[in-house]
Formats: sequence, C-alpha cells, structure tokens
Amino acid sequence: ALHPLGHAAVTLDGGFLADWQLRNREGTIPHAIEQLEASHALDNLRRITGEHEGEFVGFWFADSDVYKTLEAIGWEAGRCGAEQFLPFVDATVDLLARAQDDDGYLNSYFQVDQPERELTELRWSHELYCLGHLLQAGVAWSRAVGRTDLLAIGLRFAELIERRFGEGGSDMVDGHPEIETALVEVFRETGDERWLRLARRFVDLRGRGLLGVDALGPQYYQDHEPVRAVREATGHAVRQLYLAAGVADVVAETGDAELAEALDRLWSSVHERKQYVSGGLGSRHRDEAFGDAYELPPDRAYAETCAAIANLHWNWRMLLLTGGSRYADEMERGLYNAIAVSTSTDGCAFTYANPLHLRSDASGGGENAPTTRQPWFRCACCPPNLARLVASLHDYVATTSADGLQLHLYADATIALPGGGTATVRTGYPWDGRVEVAFDEPFEGELLLRRPGWARGAILTADGRSVPTEARDGYLVVDGSAHPLSRVVLDLPMEPEVLRPHPRIDAVRGCVAVARGPVLYAIEQADLPEGVLSDDVVVPEAPEVRPAGVDPVTGPRLLIAGARVRGGHRHELYRAMPSARTDAGHAPSSSAFGLIAVPYHRWGNRAPGGMRVWLPTR
Amino acid sequence: ALHPLGHAAVTLDGGFLADWQLRNREGTIPHAIEQLEASHALDNLRRITGEHEGEFVGFWFADSDVYKTLEAIGWEAGRCGAEQFLPFVDATVDLLARAQDDDGYLNSYFQVDQPERELTELRWSHELYCLGHLLQAGVAWSRAVGRTDLLAIGLRFAELIERRFGEGGSDMVDGHPEIETALVEVFRETGDERWLRLARRFVDLRGRGLLGVDALGPQYYQDHEPVRAVREATGHAVRQLYLAAGVADVVAETGDAELAEALDRLWSSVHERKQYVSGGLGSRHRDEAFGDAYELPPDRAYAETCAAIANLHWNWRMLLLTGGSRYADEMERGLYNAIAVSTSTDGCAFTYANPLHLRSDASGGGENAPTTRQPWFRCACCPPNLARLVASLHDYVATTSADGLQLHLYADATIALPGGGTATVRTGYPWDGRVEVAFDEPFEGELLLRRPGWARGAILTADGRSVPTEARDGYLVVDGSAHPLSRVVLDLPMEPEVLRPHPRIDAVRGCVAVARGPVLYAIEQADLPEGVLSDDVVVPEAPEVRPAGVDPVTGPRLLIAGARVRGGHRHELYRAMPSARTDAGHAPSSSAFGLIAVPYHRWGNRAPGGMRVWLPTR
Repeated sequence: ALHPLGHAAVTLDGGFLADWQLRNREGTIPHAIEQLEASHALDNLRRITGEHEGEFVGFWFADSDVYKTLEAIGWEAGRCGAEQFLPFVDATVDLLARAQDDDGYLNSYFQVDQPERELTELRWSHELYCLGHLLQAGVAWSRAVGRTDLLAIGLRFAELIERRFGEGGSDMVDGHPEIETALVEVFRETGDERWLRLARRFVDLRGRGLLGVDALGPQYYQDHEPVRAVREATGHAVRQLYLAAGVADVVAETGDAELAEALDRLWSSVHERKQYVSGGLGSRHRDEAFGDAYELPPDRAYAETCAAIANLHWNWRMLLLTGGSRYADEMERGLYNAIAVSTSTDGCAFTYANPLHLRSDASGGGENAPTTRQPWFRCACCPPNLARLVASLHDYVATTSADGLQLHLYADATIALPGGGTATVRTGYPWDGRVEVAFDEPFEGELLLRRPGWARGAILTADGRSVPTEARDGYLVVDGSAHPLSRVVLDLPMEPEVLRPHPRIDAVRGCVAVARGPVLYAIEQADLPEGVLSDDVVVPEAPEVRPAGVDPVTGPRLLIAGARVRGGHRHELYRAMPSARTDAGHAPSSSAFGLIAVPYHRWGNRAPGGMRVWLPTR
Repeated sequence: ALHPLGHAAVTLDGGFLADWQLRNREGTIPHAIEQLEASHALDNLRRITGEHEGEFVGFWFADSDVYKTLEAIGWEAGRCGAEQFLPFVDATVDLLARAQDDDGYLNSYFQVDQPERELTELRWSHELYCLGHLLQAGVAWSRAVGRTDLLAIGLRFAELIERRFGEGGSDMVDGHPEIETALVEVFRETGDERWLRLARRFVDLRGRGLLGVDALGPQYYQDHEPVRAVREATGHAVRQLYLAAGVADVVAETGDAELAEALDRLWSSVHERKQYVSGGLGSRHRDEAFGDAYELPPDRAYAETCAAIANLHWNWRMLLLTGGSRYADEMERGLYNAIAVSTSTDGCAFTYANPLHLRSDASGGGENAPTTRQPWFRCACCPPNLARLVASLHDYVATTSADGLQLHLYADATIALPGGGTATVRTGYPWDGRVEVAFDEPFEGELLLRRPGWARGAILTADGRSVPTEARDGYLVVDGSAHPLSRVVLDLPMEPEVLRPHPRIDAVRGCVAVARGPVLYAIEQADLPEGVLSDDVVVPEAPEVRPAGVDPVTGPRLLIAGARVRGGHRHELYRAMPSARTDAGHAPSSSAFGLIAVPYHRWGNRAPGGMRVWLPTR
C-alpha cells in the first residue's frame, strides 16, 4: 500500500494546478463565502440561535455548503495560511458551537422546523451526510493546522449518532452516503477505532431495505443490495461514488477482502462501461443516475461535477490500496476535463451538469443543465465541493511507500521527502510531457513515475543514464539503490490523438474525439467560420490534427484538417432509400477547412453557442 | 375543410384495425374496469358519498382514469352496443351524480382531502384536466347513443368553472391542458357558444405567468409564452400536444388565422425536428419533456403512449382544417407504431414509455420505462386513453366535404355516405398496399385517396380505367362527375424500405432502420442466433431486405441480408489511434447471416431481451 505524504509535504510551485489553487483561493473561496450569505445558508444556522428570523431557505441539506467551504479554508490554512478568511471561520465555528444542541445534534433545518423528526427519516434527511461534511471540515482544520474546535463540534454530534446507530443501537443508514468516508478519516485523525467500526457498520447495513421504498427506488439511495454483492454501478451517481470511496476507506483500514472484490467489480462497471471520455459520470438527468452499460449520450450527459470529484476521491483511495496506475489515470482524466470544465476562468461561475455536446439552439433546461456557468445553485453542492478539492490538490500529486516515492500527477512541485531532503518537479504538464525531477540530496530509494494510459512511448533518463521503460503496475521504475538519484527526466511524447469510442456506445457512433496528453478537446461555435454551425461540421475518419497556437482564453489550440460542412438540409427527419442505394442527400461541401479545437475544460468562456467533443465523421 | 362522417357512419369490418377494436372490447376495456377497482380509483369517488372509508389512493387526478374508461365504453356503445358494460356504467354515473356537490364541483381528491383548496391551485391540481375528460366521456355517450346523463354531470361542473373563470371571472388556466378540446367538443354537441368562448379564453390566457413558477419551469405547464407567439414545441410533451389539439379545435370553430399560423410553426417543430420515426414524441424522461431539436435518443426515448395519442388527435384536427395528407400520414405513423406498440397481444398489458432501443442488460428504471409491458400504472393515464382511442378508431378512417369522400386510413370498412349509399373498402393494409373501394350506388362525387408519404408509386384504376396519380395535397383524385364510380382500385407498392435519419439526429448516426409500408420494424433478441447479442449486430449500409414469412406472434417478418457480428471486444471505452489510422479493432465477423426483423409494435411479446429499431452499419 501507498501512503499520503502528509498535508504539508507538497507545495505546488506553478503551472496548471498551482494556478488553479490560486484561482480557488482568490476567486472561488471568497465567492463561496459571499454566496453562503446570499443563499441564506448561514442565516439558516442563525435561526437556531435566534440571531435570524424568517423561513428556512434552500434545500434542507444546505448546512453542508457551509461545512465544505470551511473544509476548503482549512486546507488553505495548512497550505499557505488563511488569515483573510479567519473572521468568517471564527464567526461560523462560534455560531455552530452555539447552535449545537446539548446532546450534540446539529442541523439547521430539523432543529427549527421539524425537531420531532430528527434522525427519524434518514432516507431523505441528509442528516448524516451533513454530519459527514462537518467531520471532514473538522479533520481538515485539525490535520492542516492543528485547530480542533470544529472537529470537536463534529465529534459531539458523531457521538450522538454512535449512541443511536452504533452497535447495539438502531440498524439504519443515511440515504446519501458520505458519512462513511468521513468516519474513517476521523478514525485516522483521532485513532479512536469506534469511528472505523461505525463506518464499517454503515457499509454493511446497506442493501437491507432499512430505508424503505419510495418512487425513486432503493438503488437511488444505495439500498438495493448489500455492498458485498454489488456487480454494477447504479442509482444516483454521486451517492454511488461517495459510497465507493467510503468502502475503499474501510478496506484500507480493515483489509476486508470481500469488500475489496466488490470494489473491483464496481470499478470495472464504472470505468469500463459507464464513464464519459471526460471522466464525467452519470448519464441520466432523471434521478441524477448512472444509466445502463454503454448508455453515454453526450448531449444529455448529466456528469455532475460532484460525481467527478467523488470519483477522484474513490480512485485516490484505490490507488493507495493497490498502487495501480489506472486509478491515477482516472484521477487525471477527471481533473483536467470533467472537473476543470466546471469552473469559469475567474473561479466564480460553475457548472452542475457537464455535457459533452451542446446544440446550437439548446434550450438549457433549468439550472442543472445551463448553457452557461452559474454563480451558484439552489442545490449548491458542487461549488464548495470544488473549493475543498482544489485547496487539497497538492495532496494527490505523490505518495510514499517502504520502497520510495511515487509520482502520480505531474506538476511543478516541491516535495518534502519522509526520509529528509526534497524532490523538485518541473514540467509544462498538461501541455508538455517533459517531467524533470531533481533531488537536493541523492535519493537512494525507488522512484516510480506514472506512465499515463494515453502515452504512446516514454523516454526516461536518470542522471544522464537511460532507464528501461517497462512499466510495473503502470509505473516506470527508477531504482536509486545502486546509483542514488539526483536528476531524473521523463519525456512523454504528447502528440494530438484521435479517440474512437467503444462500438457499443451507440450515442457517439461514427464520431471521433481529439485529445492531447490528458486534455480532451472540443470544438466551439466561437471558432467556426461565419455561417457554419457546430451542428453541421464533419471531419475525416482519420483526421490529421496539429497544434494551432495558444489562445489567451482557451489555451493551447489544435487544428483538425479536412473538416467540411454538411449541406443540403431537408425537412424530413427520416428518409426511405431503395435498399440498393445509400443517402447522398447530405454530402458534405466540397471545400475543406481547418477546424479549431480548444481544451474541453475551457469551453463556454467566450461567446455562447454550440459545443461538441465528439465530431461526426459522416 | 373536411368533416367527420359521424360516429355511426363507418364500420370496421375486419383486418388490423377491426381486430384492434375487438381486442379493446374483449381485453382492454374489461381489464380497465377491473383495474379501476384494484387501483381504488372508484373507491376514491366512493369516499365522497361515504360508501368507502380509507385514504385517497393513487395520483390526485385518478378520476380521469374513470372518465376515460367511460368514454371508451360510450364509443363502444355507439359502435356495437355495450350491454355487458352497462352495470359498471350505470353504477358509476349514479355514483358521480351523487358525489357531485350542489354547486357542480366534482373531484374525489379535493372534495374529501382538501376542500379548502378547491380550484385554487390549478398549476398542479388537474381539476380542469379531469373535468375535460368527464366532458369528453359525456360527449361520447351523447353523440354515440344519445345518453346524456353523464354529459349533464359534466355540464353542471363546467357551469361552475365558467362562472368562476369565464369572461368577467378570474383569469386562470389549468396546468395540464385538456379542457380546451373538451369544451369545443361540448360546444359542438350542445351548440352553446359559451363553451367555445371559454375554450378560446383558456387558450389566450396561457403564457401570461398566471400559474406562477416552480422548479419545473413555466414551459412544463405550457405557461411560458402566449400560444400565438409559440415557435417551438417544448415542455411536457403530453401537455404540449393536448394544448395543440385544443387550439386546432378553436381554430376550426373560429377561423382564427393567427392561431392557425402558430399551429403551423408548432407542427413543423414537432414533426420536422422532434419526432421519433415511430411517431413517438418526448425525448426526455426528466419532466416527460420534448428535448431540443434533433435530440432523439432511441434508448432513452420517453415517447409516452399518451403523447402519441394526443398527436393523433391533433393531426386529425389539422387534417379536418386543411385536408393535407401529411397530417393523415402522421396519424398513420403513430397508429401502427408508437401507439400500437403500447399494448400486448392480449390487450391487457401496456407500455408508458416507448423506447426504440433496449440494451441486453437494460435495467428498466421504474414503471415508466419497463422492459416488459405492465398491467396498469400508478399514473394510469395511458391504458384508458388507449381504450377510448381504439373504440373510436373508425371515426378517423374517412371524411366528407362538399365535393365528396376522402379516405385517410385504409382498412376493411363499410362507410355510409352522407348522400345515401355505402362505400365498401377492402384491403390487406398495413401488410398489403392494395385498396379496393366499391360503391353500392354509382358515386358521382370526388373520391380522394391518400397517397402515403412512404409510397414510391401508385397505380389507380376506376372501373377499369387508369386514373392519373398526380396528387393534390397528397391525395389521389378520382372524379365521379363524368363517369360515376362503382369500383376504384388503388395499388400501393409495398417494398421493404431502408430508412436513414437526418444527419443532425446525432443519437442514431451511422444507423439505418427498416420499414414496410407504414410499419416500422425492429430486431429482437428472440430472433437472433445463439450467442449473438442485439448489441453487437451490424448491417450493411444499404442492406437488401426481403419478406421472411409470417410469425404467429409478431406477424409478417423481414430478413435483412448481410448482417454481421462485431467481435473483439476490448475493455477500454475510448481508444486513441494515431491520426493516420482508423480503428480496426472491432471489425465485424467475416460470416454474414440473415437478420430477422419484426414489426416494432409487436416487440416484447416473446422472451425478454434486447431490441433495436436503428441498426448500426459500422
């Protein structure tokens, strides 16, 4: 197993991820604090103490928005201080302490509006979900800077839950998984095994029908079958993925082999049959659900931002458990695509659903499927979830093990090594595939460098010597035991690639996508010639793709040669042809043009209009 | 304008439509009566009179299930008597009469559970929707056999509504259109113009925000813009289509040119951009909505049965208004495909959603998207809607005008002509394209025979003389003024056809479908060779298709030559290929086989398994 290096060990020095952290600190987090006021999430809590009058506003789980924002600031505090946010943090922690009931209960909706239903309707109440986020925030502050007042509030509530639902108490689970992973993190932070036992208990009580039945069905709540029996990812995507992360945490701490096998089955279901090329997850707007295997429509992709974040959390835990590069590959896929696309270039506007195709005349369809990013949401789970992820991004870059150091995500970083000394990484990733690792003291351990699934080759040198590039579990191995390492250089060729979908993915049959390195590309109306709609562009089956300069908004562009425009539109939706003939009625125009593609994650930052990742070849 | 012949004028003598009416009479209607008891829809009404104790069961608009069943029986009574159903009818009409309040109000949910909210929350209450169905049932009984007690109950309620919401009353509309077309039908039945005025008022009050806003958005309730301004079909598909039918009724009776133009725009939006090849309508499960233009996924097609029925109602009204064959073409398309598919061969099990593609391992996803037909639904709008449509199918076969007779749907039928005499139609339609029309007295008018949009040619003779086949508004014209007609024979060649989708329909790119005459075909797992899944079949781009005998369950089959199986499955969902190469990793197997296709409307009557209308060519 691999181990995290610890929250203070890695500093992102520059480049894509560091810029994202800066944008998060200067844009997203202050914006989130404003929105917690504007959305009345804080007022909801002030109603408990009598500091605010009025109705509860928003969804009944809006406390979690507050907790996720506090968690983000906690990680920021550990990363480079959070002085500017302390007035908000101190006031909010104080408010929470005063709002908490004597028995530990804390939930702004139930305490004021429905005290008689407290902890009685966990199918929909989200009470343990909110507690989970409170605990995660407490863990962040404790781990990052040793501040424990927030964790203490969470623990008081957790103790009430343990008395009520722990061994010997009622058999019950929460309709929205999240508490499981939080409890394991609390165990790690406090060393108290009862939290691990409670997490495992919550995992094992699923699938027994404890939540009862409603129109959404038991799979929506992850109560359709025991986790140990699961074969397919199903139901509400975020619930499924948070649960998977929690189960992985339980496996990590207990070594439960049966649960580990269930996770393997679930992982294959998600990543081999139900995932978008962007790393987005969840094919259905209805019930925010995973669809059937290979049901992956690009236009109606729900691909909720929170699902991609949950998937990163889960894959990180799988990576720690197994050391397999495929998990880090999926983290990378999500990070540079499904997650990055969710935030505007100023860090203050967000997507909730993340389609891979927007038609020219798309009507939007409510706040969950906007044609433009939104400043906040009535169900505002995603923006503060992004804030907490980005503030902790440096934690996912590298790990350690008994044998040495493993690099998973490539970024300019300074890494304090467990045995002393530092490693410095320099790279132009994700736009350039060269990665240089310098050790200030010769490194005698094993350095593992992930060979990304997208890479067609790799050139590796250690202090000028060529190193074989056979991968072990997807990692290139540089052994410093004979020749301690000072400078290791990995060159990953980063040519534009044409991606083809599995033929069972019906929704994108006859289409190709374009990527370069880990970055998926899309075409956008803003780059098309006058009079050409994104709906009508056709590219060759095997198009030539080459770099096409850097745009200040979208970043590095690609040019797809030989694109044409389909013309001759007819009114009929369906046309019969004698069986011996094919349809020549929509032959593309004869003049070819160079089609500009931009990183998918940067789309929607210019003029509104159509967008598509999958490009028809006919 | 064309005119209905009147309810007693046409008798279906045999063949597809007559069989359907028989199945409806012997299967569906008795089944519906049973289900009205089993679902407690009748008990809900008995709660008003105190004959039943207990909670309201089902949706608050379940009264409409009762009314639609009564309407179906009304048409049956006119068609060939309904003696066996009279105990149910008499008891139910008596119950309704006793349940009705003194002021005319009648609604089993509000009268008992929420009397204080009666007629105050029309956005969601469905009170006028239910009244609309009560009035439709009343009209059916009055028109078919002159029984007026049910209509009288409806009129008492309608008078209350007119006092409350008519001119000089409150400005309000119902969140679910239906009352509009019912009121025009009541006007036609009673001659009282106030019902037409009220219908027109309800049409004109839409789109003014009277219903207020909720999370579903104003388009869901058809309150997003005035009908006169409408450009696109949007929102809840059934609501949109019922409204369109009601507007067409208002146009028919008022000649309102501005509304007629709005209907033309709406018709193009639906039928040129938002309709499935089956005639199904509504692309989204979420909010049961129309999607964007060309958003037509076959797997997640909602295509609610009620939407296809509503579309038939609307196109019938457009046909009467204009005489254009495209409206009858759409009636035919829906009838033999999207509507026919909704009922099992015994008439006692139904679909609600009607997808055009079911994967082998499809999980279903609740009662609205079953993998098998269901005996009834919690929201049981569709089955009794089918019953009332099928019981009145003969009304849609032919019309009359000042010039003569128009034949729209071809079926074995005896037609009593307005001027005396009868026309007898004999045909093997929809399986055979020969249509013979015999007049018992020489016919001196103009006989119009629809030339279906799918027909590639036509041979027409009148009493042995060849008649030119230039169509007028899509109709072949046989003029009896010079040579009175005795026997007219139309031959429509009915070769299997390969259909190709408009290239903007992304979800079925690179696929073809197969049809013969008006009947769409599908492949079904039950017909595939051992070990071949419907998910993996590939057909040639221009396949040869020929008849392949008649199966007792599915009817006439077709054989698609040259099908192959795609092999070499890989785990990766997405594969990068150097830009100069295409993906050869999934070449179909070298051995070709003959692929059996069955009428789409008969799928799902044998062993469960995958189904698809659109067949990949790559």
